Amino acid sequence: MADNPNCDLKSLSPLQLFERVTEQGEKVRALKAGKAPKDEIDAAVRMLLSLKMSYKTTTGQDYRAGLPPKDLVLINNGTTKEEDEDLVDPWNVQTSNAKGVDYDKLIVRFGSSKIDTDLINRIERATGQKPHHFLRRGIFFSHRDMDQILDAYENKKSFYLYTGRGPSSQAMHVGHLIPFMFTKWLQEVFDVPLVIQLTDDEKYLWKDMAVEKAHEYAKENAKDIIACGFDINKTFIFSDLDYLGASPGFYKNIVKVQKHVTFNQVKGIFGFTDSDCIGKISFPAIQAAPSFSSSFPQIFNGKENIQCLIPCAIDQDPYFRMTRDVAPRIGQPKPALLHSIFFPALQGAQTKMSASDPNSSIFLTDTPKQIKTKINKHAFSGGRDTIEEHRKYGGNCDVDVSFMYLTFFLEDDDRLEQLKQAYTSGELLTGELKKVLIETMQPLVAAHQERRKQITDEVVKQFMTPRKLAFEF
Amino acid sequence: MADNPNCDLKSLSPLQLFERVTEQGEKVRALKAGKAPKDEIDAAVRMLLSLKMSYKTTTGQDYRAGLPPKDLVLINNGTTKEEDEDLVDPWNVQTSNAKGVDYDKLIVRFGSSKIDTDLINRIERATGQKPHHFLRRGIFFSHRDMDQILDAYENKKSFYLYTGRGPSSQAMHVGHLIPFMFTKWLQEVFDVPLVIQLTDDEKYLWKDMAVEKAHEYAKENAKDIIACGFDINKTFIFSDLDYLGASPGFYKNIVKVQKHVTFNQVKGIFGFTDSDCIGKISFPAIQAAPSFSSSFPQIFNGKENIQCLIPCAIDQDPYFRMTRDVAPRIGQPKPALLHSIFFPALQGAQTKMSASDPNSSIFLTDTPKQIKTKINKHAFSGGRDTIEEHRKYGGNCDVDVSFMYLTFFLEDDDRLEQLKQAYTSGELLTGELKKVLIETMQPLVAAHQERRKQITDEVVKQFMTPRKLAFEF
Repeated sequence: MADNPNCDLKSLSPLQLFERVTEQGEKVRALKAGKAPKDEIDAAVRMLLSLKMSYKTTTGQDYRAGLPPKDLVLINNGTTKEEDEDLVDPWNVQTSNAKGVDYDKLIVRFGSSKIDTDLINRIERATGQKPHHFLRRGIFFSHRDMDQILDAYENKKSFYLYTGRGPSSQAMHVGHLIPFMFTKWLQEVFDVPLVIQLTDDEKYLWKDMAVEKAHEYAKENAKDIIACGFDINKTFIFSDLDYLGASPGFYKNIVKVQKHVTFNQVKGIFGFTDSDCIGKISFPAIQAAPSFSSSFPQIFNGKENIQCLIPCAIDQDPYFRMTRDVAPRIGQPKPALLHSIFFPALQGAQTKMSASDPNSSIFLTDTPKQIKTKINKHAFSGGRDTIEEHRKYGGNCDVDVSFMYLTFFLEDDDRLEQLKQAYTSGELLTGELKKVLIETMQPLVAAHQERRKQITDEVVKQFMTPRKLAFEF
Repeated sequence: MADNPNCDLKSLSPLQLFERVTEQGEKVRALKAGKAPKDEIDAAVRMLLSLKMSYKTTTGQDYRAGLPPKDLVLINNGTTKEEDEDLVDPWNVQTSNAKGVDYDKLIVRFGSSKIDTDLINRIERATGQKPHHFLRRGIFFSHRDMDQILDAYENKKSFYLYTGRGPSSQAMHVGHLIPFMFTKWLQEVFDVPLVIQLTDDEKYLWKDMAVEKAHEYAKENAKDIIACGFDINKTFIFSDLDYLGASPGFYKNIVKVQKHVTFNQVKGIFGFTDSDCIGKISFPAIQAAPSFSSSFPQIFNGKENIQCLIPCAIDQDPYFRMTRDVAPRIGQPKPALLHSIFFPALQGAQTKMSASDPNSSIFLTDTPKQIKTKINKHAFSGGRDTIEEHRKYGGNCDVDVSFMYLTFFLEDDDRLEQLKQAYTSGELLTGELKKVLIETMQPLVAAHQERRKQITDEVVKQFMTPRKLAFEF
């Protein structure tokens, strides 16, 4: 997802784009008529498709020859938005690009580092394991100080993992599993302890939700998280509403962070205003504190200053930029980070996923039939309007949500590459690609449901009990 | 302290005051020369004394006949301040009036109610006990909803007490005991449970102090508090740093308050700015939460919505105005309040007491000799400059700190009244009044020290362990 051939198209107006598509269409026809080499024709066709996609992204309408753009229905509630003005913070992810957020720009804006081949190779050497497909495919694409984690690890100095979830509803969808699937892999290959924060207090503060409801969702969500297969001897899951009232070590770190961050700072980082409640304003410290091992005296047997690694979606980075700024001032090591891209809604990478809209993603409670229907009805297609056109020009994997979902969930690299080739060339139809996704997701969700069923309240209680975890540092 | 004969003097400039003193001096001389009735002369003398005190308060200098004010050294860091502009909030108490803050005006400004004779009589009837001298002498002078507490109490519906202290240092002075002495009396006569909050987190946030130090001070201060004689079966003392991490019920109430108070509100109430740390901004919720019995599920056996009564100095009222505003919105009863006046520094009611200045008050660790020296050297006197003048005009009890201290600590009403008469008439000299204070404070402090010595770490631990308290509701 790194190289974007459309970069130069972003400054074009809808009408200019229309003209570029028309020109490119004529060029393709001329090449084919002149029996140009296949490579040349293919390249021109790919460019045509890209242009058409850009046109659709910008105008919200399909390109139609001879019909220049008029009365445009723009995406994003009718407001025009520069494509390079992606909005990314812990509560908003907005982009008008059908491919989703421009992650390379985000790395520059956030000041993080790209996960490149060198780093992936180092992870492989350090763990002796083939890197997870989320790494190989750029799904975890950005990091902070992962090289330092590896430096220390190679010198037998270990670390712990910290990730989390805001339990905004009982219903989790497959996208919510991404950080947990990856964290589980990290826990396995590095053999390290893990803490998982459920920010039920945050959800209470931000949503119109009773405190008891948020707490209930936390415990429900814990079951789905545990079903990812975490090691009970190395994993502590906690609800803020429970654990903040159960660990003086945690509260001490919170109050230390709160002393070292001003309202001006959180205003700048999170966009809070004077009308925001004081709970929101001080909450960032609660998400920061688990980055410090002294928040978990039970777990680490009182051992402090253990290095922390946080796998999370890139929208959570503002919390940890703040944490990394405060850490040295309170005598704590800065947490390292691994950032993932966002999981797209079925309707497309530029639309917002909503837990309250069951059609925006595949939920962990969906039946095989529901999965089939959702994918067939709602998964945004990068294919052509007609079979003939599709056979001729092929589909666009960059915007096809079925293909995107497969990059997340189809582990077989060769198979994925075959699908890409076949779809792009027009050999594979949209319906056929969707069928592959359905056949991938149905057993995956069914297996999750099967594992979840095994998880009793007693098991949840064990995971959520503060206790010493198995570790060696 | 209610009627202030000098009210009309407040708008006068130093020079105008000088002229009024001179005029009044001439009037007194004329009355005496003309052998006017004793009553008339006495009244004129009292007015003269008041005028002289006003002059001293305003200019910081004694009135000297023929020497009009020049190059005035004004009190309060050289800034001129209207006398009716007392500054009262949890971190500042400032007044330029030698008598201290104008409490009647504060009642109007804060919107609380005066503790009048009717209320004091009702307390006497309800408890069957003679009202505490703090009530009889207007030291606890203001309230919110105390009548409702009594209505309920008379109908066999009980309540609990909540008070607290910010452990800013190891050293507590006698003034710090006022709310605790009164609270102990309330606990006894109403037979109710009590929670005492030690805001070590607040002190960490506000002061240049390590979190461990603040916590240590909390435990040290607990000993002095326990030495006031609280019933161990009915009293729970807690440090925020400990208890916030030990009670999910407490944190839930904190987060509920934090959701219902905006930055705009705390800015208005406490004067916070954008440069304040987010810990300060959200702290008011931590002082609010103990007003709700659900913060103490262990204590009240899970019983919620028990009415709370908070005895405290009036500077803490902003916290509880906020709490009372939030309470109905989170389904909790509003706490009732009893407000005390401030305890004056030895140097006078308009100077600031400072725990870092050992001469600003009598400390609970002072030896009898230290007490004697401090009172003799530092207690601001309302007496005359010479014995002759004193015998002639008498002393001013309204500004005499030794007399003020006796109103706090000398329980015998008749004796206090005798002292007042004798001092005002000039019969009792400043040194003699100071001697009475020394003889009152020495045994009081010694007895406190004796009781404190008995308090082992084990006893402190018992008081500070969350547990069921003895109560009937």
